[in-house]
Amino acid sequence: MRKRAPARGIEEIAGGGVTSPQGFRAGATFAGIKTLGKAPLDLGIVASDAPCVSAAMFTRSAVKGAAVQVSIRHARRGALRAIIVNAGCSNVATGATGLRDAEEMADLAAGRLRIEPAGVIVGSTGVIGRALPMDKIRAGVPRIRLARDGGARFARAIMTTDTRPKEAAVRFRAGGRAYTIGACAKGAGMIHPDMATMFCWITTDAAVERRFLQRALRNAVDDSLNMMSVDADTSTSDTTAILANGAAGGPRIVAGTPAAAAFAAALRHVCISMAKMLARDGEGAQKLIEVRIEGAANDRQARAAARTVTASPLVKAAVHGNDPNWGRLLMAVGRSGARIDLDRAGVWIGDLPVYRRLPLPFDEAAASACLRNEEVLLRVDLGVGKASATAWGCDLTPEYVHINSDYTT
Amino acid sequence: MRKRAPARGIEEIAGGGVTSPQGFRAGATFAGIKTLGKAPLDLGIVASDAPCVSAAMFTRSAVKGAAVQVSIRHARRGALRAIIVNAGCSNVATGATGLRDAEEMADLAAGRLRIEPAGVIVGSTGVIGRALPMDKIRAGVPRIRLARDGGARFARAIMTTDTRPKEAAVRFRAGGRAYTIGACAKGAGMIHPDMATMFCWITTDAAVERRFLQRALRNAVDDSLNMMSVDADTSTSDTTAILANGAAGGPRIVAGTPAAAAFAAALRHVCISMAKMLARDGEGAQKLIEVRIEGAANDRQARAAARTVTASPLVKAAVHGNDPNWGRLLMAVGRSGARIDLDRAGVWIGDLPVYRRLPLPFDEAAASACLRNEEVLLRVDLGVGKASATAWGCDLTPEYVHINSDYTT
Repeated sequence: MRKRAPARGIEEIAGGGVTSPQGFRAGATFAGIKTLGKAPLDLGIVASDAPCVSAAMFTRSAVKGAAVQVSIRHARRGALRAIIVNAGCSNVATGATGLRDAEEMADLAAGRLRIEPAGVIVGSTGVIGRALPMDKIRAGVPRIRLARDGGARFARAIMTTDTRPKEAAVRFRAGGRAYTIGACAKGAGMIHPDMATMFCWITTDAAVERRFLQRALRNAVDDSLNMMSVDADTSTSDTTAILANGAAGGPRIVAGTPAAAAFAAALRHVCISMAKMLARDGEGAQKLIEVRIEGAANDRQARAAARTVTASPLVKAAVHGNDPNWGRLLMAVGRSGARIDLDRAGVWIGDLPVYRRLPLPFDEAAASACLRNEEVLLRVDLGVGKASATAWGCDLTPEYVHINSDYTT
Repeated sequence: MRKRAPARGIEEIAGGGVTSPQGFRAGATFAGIKTLGKAPLDLGIVASDAPCVSAAMFTRSAVKGAAVQVSIRHARRGALRAIIVNAGCSNVATGATGLRDAEEMADLAAGRLRIEPAGVIVGSTGVIGRALPMDKIRAGVPRIRLARDGGARFARAIMTTDTRPKEAAVRFRAGGRAYTIGACAKGAGMIHPDMATMFCWITTDAAVERRFLQRALRNAVDDSLNMMSVDADTSTSDTTAILANGAAGGPRIVAGTPAAAAFAAALRHVCISMAKMLARDGEGAQKLIEVRIEGAANDRQARAAARTVTASPLVKAAVHGNDPNWGRLLMAVGRSGARIDLDRAGVWIGDLPVYRRLPLPFDEAAASACLRNEEVLLRVDLGVGKASATAWGCDLTPEYVHINSDYTT
């Protein structure tokens, strides 16, 4: 798969994350909540030194975790300035006790940071239907040391079945000034975000007008996290938030300006990096699959087709087995609701055309070799219009089944 | 799982199938099309001795196989009287050649049976994107010996990755007369029917009014094949048809009569038998999962919730591992679009309550034992209304991935 360079003026920061932007500190501890995974951290905080403008998006699931319910309330004012997250217990389906526990988590972080509880967004991830061990969280919060280089520890503390942390940061310039956006994410299973993804926490030292920030986040998420699927299952806890503290100085970025365009492009870049890292680290996954749909009747259909192909177990299994069974791409497009004209359509595995109006003779060994890459590109031209979309997923492996056959027991 | 007895007056015929009703003959041969599977049969015909009234349903996929396109045309008159099916090649995405080949298959069967080609419905199943080996089909059709006991051979000839044939027949009485409905089905992967399923061929010796037959088929399929999922992937070739030849004698069954009610109940029974056999024999599956949703706001939401749970890879993997991870049931319901009130909802694994307004303490060993059965019942009360629905699926196993990682190669 060809690497696409960042858009002009966007510079990736090697090893960057949520504490790359100025004025953010983070830290984490092992509170003893997590029973899975090797990273011995399960409770973390990110905080801005100064008040922020914020935007957030949450799962559209009808079953929302207690942390999501509390966070939706706190996010409403657009003034979040700290994030507290635990792994090992999602605090979902836990009734009134769960809500009180989620509120207490915000209180504990607020007390530690000497800010208002309503400025704290809460994330909890892990098994559904178990109460948070609040004694461990109460003991853990004071042990968290916040530091300017604490982003990496925080990124590890939010992991569950992830095999590696997911972090990125970019620098961009606008109005002669340099700004930074940093992010980290987690999630390897139960991933087929609708509205937002598992956890994706984003920070920036830009000063951004609130309504523009919300719109920029929504647009970026629609093209990135919402186009990514590990297993078509949508979590009860999906949360994405961006905190903008203005520490880089300069005028507030408002919609319709060149600075807004630069900011939106940089945010989109970071979110796509996160989406690809999440897909690549899907439970049991060995490959990142990028699906590009072209020639669709409209954007909605292009997106539906791309997402359906990335979510198809048969496509994912074929990619896993390096099997150039391209008929499954057409099958998945066929059930996506997108219009397709088989007399004009085309299918490519990597750069290799395998169907164009008719099945093409092709070199099966070469096609199989394309599928053997760690990044697999699948492309379908629907032959009916001009709209296009890209989605990311991963292969389906026996390991996915093993991981999910004995999660609680 | 408690066995539910057939409705009053419906009698299951042991070893019955498409030739159980009077006046139907069937047969099959090995034409050499199939490269997979052990059953050495891949081309079959079912035919009625007399003209029939028929009804049929087809995949809603935008990518329809050539056989489906030809069959839709032939089915329009409601006078199908023969079925020809090959396994090993689905004749999908094969352009004008594929359409000509599907038409020739109907012609070959019609010539063999001395009937009109438009009276023949064609089914092709197997790999997508390869041309039918018409020389083998031309040589094979004359070799098919049609017999009154040929239903079992036909049921084996339509198999692809199925591990066993699926057949059933029932007898019911109406107006002092005995009628028979027989059926066979195939399909183990790419199964998440929308409108119809892989193949389900149904015969009856009842005389049935055409419009009522179509409605009875749609209603039966909606409660059976359309509530069944192996892997959430919808085939390009799904076809269900019923041929009613009236050989049992008696007046034509018309809507609104006691005979119509008896016929509809018997047809529904046969279709549910087929759906359960298909789910149980899902690729790699070791268990049949039955999901009952209760307390839904309306039928649509009940059905959506039931189908989403049966299609959830995380639920399927947990059942495979005997892992009573009931939170995944709530997760799946949450993303189904159905309304749920967690303060009133309930969840059962088998007969064991695990959630009722709150997580319940429960015996994990007992819950795990419920999941160890070959038939697993999962039940969710959404707590918002009175509608209910039942859906069938199967567990997700590493074997599913193995089977689908190297299907063409």
